[in-house]
Amino acid sequence: MTESNLINHIKTYITLSEEELSEIVLFFDYHSYTKKEILLFAEKKCDKLFFVIKGCLQLYFIDGLGNQKTSQFAVENWWLTDFLAFQNQNQSNFNIETVEASQVLSISFSKYQELLDKFPKMEKYFRTIYETAYGSALMRLKYINSFSKEDIFFRFRDNFPEFVQRVPQYFLASFLGLTPEYLSEIKKR
Amino acid sequence: MTESNLINHIKTYITLSEEELSEIVLFFDYHSYTKKEILLFAEKKCDKLFFVIKGCLQLYFIDGLGNQKTSQFAVENWWLTDFLAFQNQNQSNFNIETVEASQVLSISFSKYQELLDKFPKMEKYFRTIYETAYGSALMRLKYINSFSKEDIFFRFRDNFPEFVQRVPQYFLASFLGLTPEYLSEIKKR
Repeated sequence: MTESNLINHIKTYITLSEEELSEIVLFFDYHSYTKKEILLFAEKKCDKLFFVIKGCLQLYFIDGLGNQKTSQFAVENWWLTDFLAFQNQNQSNFNIETVEASQVLSISFSKYQELLDKFPKMEKYFRTIYETAYGSALMRLKYINSFSKEDIFFRFRDNFPEFVQRVPQYFLASFLGLTPEYLSEIKKR
Repeated sequence: MTESNLINHIKTYITLSEEELSEIVLFFDYHSYTKKEILLFAEKKCDKLFFVIKGCLQLYFIDGLGNQKTSQFAVENWWLTDFLAFQNQNQSNFNIETVEASQVLSISFSKYQELLDKFPKMEKYFRTIYETAYGSALMRLKYINSFSKEDIFFRFRDNFPEFVQRVPQYFLASFLGLTPEYLSEIKKR
């Protein structure tokens, strides 16, 4: 069953009955995407929150020079959207696109509100998820601001070796604030 | 009453009785600090989450060259800690210091758990706070990665004019990923 990943992930944080869990997954829509499909468009209303069952998504924007810049990746068991735009039901500041073929669950803002109202325990689940995500973002800001560009890559590779193998170099470079040429050069050393 | 700021802030997100709110503030300790006092030390166990009643805190680290780098500010009604270290009860990766004389509430990790267990509605409050904070961090990562350094400063000044007046230039420069000299130069133009 495609939703079992979400059920198992929720179970690691909070205790719910099997009946409640079966009800919870009904709030979500299941999608299967090929590589490079766009799930969320910048400047369109951000009305979806995504959970990755299998695969990899990226949150990116196009800079003033037309370059695609990756701000966040999401692999199995990660949540992704433009959280500010989703919360305020505004236009998205980012695109979300599959990096590889992906299985994804999505929930609309109104369903998300309904889910949290009906199952207040899910507040604890999302509180913990966002607490971790915010803490990780502060650590990433620290990394970007503290190490040489070469150090950023090697520290990242040491912490997430499989991820470095998995994600195209072009996206990885922009996520780490490097040019693809520079990343290619330091990987050769 | 010093805790009224926290009470008012909670009330904007969730509905609780006056009795519940009076009980909730008992979980917190009140502190009054002068300028440049350290509230949390890097490499010491991170056992405190802070709420700013009045004043300004900064989360920073010392880089390999001995430079102080600001990763986050917190003004009135903001929460601050090293969230990953707090959640895992690990050593902090950052210092927290007052930028100006500040009134602060703090809560230990065990009290925070107790508070959330006793008042599950507070899960919704913190879920919303962290959702916003994480969304803002992704936007900040976008800003850092998208604009020229000059643009970053002017966009920041346009969005937070009072903040630019309030915070010492040295801290602001490092928060925006600029050198103090460069910031001083572009402010003169």
